[in-house]
Amino acid sequence: MPLPTIDDVRQAAARIKPYVHHTPVLTCTSLDHMAHAQLFFKCENFQKVGAFKFRGACNIVFSLSEADAQRGVATHSSGNHGAALAHAAQLRNIPAHIVMPHNVPQVKRDAIAGYGAHIIWCEPSQADREATVKRVVDETGAVFAHPSNDALVIAGQGTAALELLDDVSELDMVLAPIGGGGLTSGLALAISACSPRTMVAVEPAGADDAYRSLQSGTLQPSVNPQTIADGLRTSLGDLTFPLIQQHVEQIVTVSEEAIIRAMRHVWERMKIVIEPSSAVPVAAVLDKRIEVSGLRVGIVLSGGNVDLASLPF
Amino acid sequence: MPLPTIDDVRQAAARIKPYVHHTPVLTCTSLDHMAHAQLFFKCENFQKVGAFKFRGACNIVFSLSEADAQRGVATHSSGNHGAALAHAAQLRNIPAHIVMPHNVPQVKRDAIAGYGAHIIWCEPSQADREATVKRVVDETGAVFAHPSNDALVIAGQGTAALELLDDVSELDMVLAPIGGGGLTSGLALAISACSPRTMVAVEPAGADDAYRSLQSGTLQPSVNPQTIADGLRTSLGDLTFPLIQQHVEQIVTVSEEAIIRAMRHVWERMKIVIEPSSAVPVAAVLDKRIEVSGLRVGIVLSGGNVDLASLPF
Repeated sequence: MPLPTIDDVRQAAARIKPYVHHTPVLTCTSLDHMAHAQLFFKCENFQKVGAFKFRGACNIVFSLSEADAQRGVATHSSGNHGAALAHAAQLRNIPAHIVMPHNVPQVKRDAIAGYGAHIIWCEPSQADREATVKRVVDETGAVFAHPSNDALVIAGQGTAALELLDDVSELDMVLAPIGGGGLTSGLALAISACSPRTMVAVEPAGADDAYRSLQSGTLQPSVNPQTIADGLRTSLGDLTFPLIQQHVEQIVTVSEEAIIRAMRHVWERMKIVIEPSSAVPVAAVLDKRIEVSGLRVGIVLSGGNVDLASLPF
Repeated sequence: MPLPTIDDVRQAAARIKPYVHHTPVLTCTSLDHMAHAQLFFKCENFQKVGAFKFRGACNIVFSLSEADAQRGVATHSSGNHGAALAHAAQLRNIPAHIVMPHNVPQVKRDAIAGYGAHIIWCEPSQADREATVKRVVDETGAVFAHPSNDALVIAGQGTAALELLDDVSELDMVLAPIGGGGLTSGLALAISACSPRTMVAVEPAGADDAYRSLQSGTLQPSVNPQTIADGLRTSLGDLTFPLIQQHVEQIVTVSEEAIIRAMRHVWERMKIVIEPSSAVPVAAVLDKRIEVSGLRVGIVLSGGNVDLASLPF
């Protein structure tokens, strides 16, 4: 499969424009003081379904031919991609089959069920997720939509960067969390093509497969990841990894304590709800894992779906 | 003391403009569906110090003569007004003496201390608050800034209505929470003068002194109020009550369960942090305590200061 290009990102932006929110960019004086920098938060927690994943899901669903669309879409997802695909399918009025591990937070299950998707439970392992979705695709003829390693998904996620660059001038650096790499590779692709600045990905130290992959130059799988940032436990793929090698300057890692502290600071100071994955790039700045003094830094807050009944503070 | 007028609100808007945020108005499709109405949320949780109180506090502090200012300001406050006055005083570089009950949430104590104010503890009763602040004023010569029953405070809070009316056309109704009445009387004053629409105040059933006051036509004190909405436990005063009698169409009450449910819905659906007092008018809509079907409804979210270590869900 060829790698997506900036043209794919621009086509995605036009295709999904009727369905997605152009999310706001917020600033916060007290976090700026803590960081000694000017921070511009791209609020994908305010995106539909509460996460950037809706961009890629819409790009897939609204790219399907009429014949393919009628058989529906299927995916495995720990939550946000599943909800996003379910809602995009609902908007096109086609079936969505969502495979998810039985231990995901209640709030995510409820969201997906609320979009009218067909939910299929699996064990919380990558192997069983993939086996189960393969069975569903074989049975239904649905089109498989990978959560990250898919050219249409990557191009869709990249549209957030086009909005950020339109809304904030003269950024020096853009930070985003990295899990499967769909968001980061899409952003990095768009940014390098439109207006080059330093693109940095941030990863939990307890799920540092992308960091190890970039260091070693070969794709390292995520094995038994340990992090509260449940959106970032997955591995890179054969599309996301080369894009990240080409366009991401570095990957830094942050501790669990720094993630929770950063999440709490954003909730308390900015009065917005972000999920742990969103706090990961904030943690890199507040915990001084990367030098940003005096810079204008874009930070992509990837989502806001949390189970309020089980917060880490 | 004469009642404040719309001219006072307009003067306040000009006076505080360099210091306050013009807060955004957010919308939410899923809450609109639940309410069968178009809801426009005026986000004073994004105001400096996390609450609308900063408007009134700035209006007092920046109205003082140079001589008065040097002796500083003093108040009793369960939190937000105290923080607001402390920060406004800090901006003018004058002393702030804040009397507060020893049982307020840690996050509010920390905020006030962070603004460099002098904190004086008291018992959590209205009588001890007032006695303690009187002693402080006698000792320091500071100017007393009442949290709500003050013409400058009322005019300052009313500036939120000017922004809301500027930003959203053709509202049918505006809802706000009512405690001491500073916010509601200021909003109602501004709205009735600028562009009359129905102004409705919402109060916890467990702290329904304003409701009983409006019903009986005489000022009823708040006695042993029982509500999670800690900003709404105080009583109306001799300025706020007549303004509310003149300009507020009705006061409706909501249950504690409805407040907590509404708060949770706003956190989960809008991805913003609001405090229980902010959830009170939302509860009136979601719990069908007032008929809003098909209407365009402004809702003032009064603040976002919560102790994340003790949430009601």
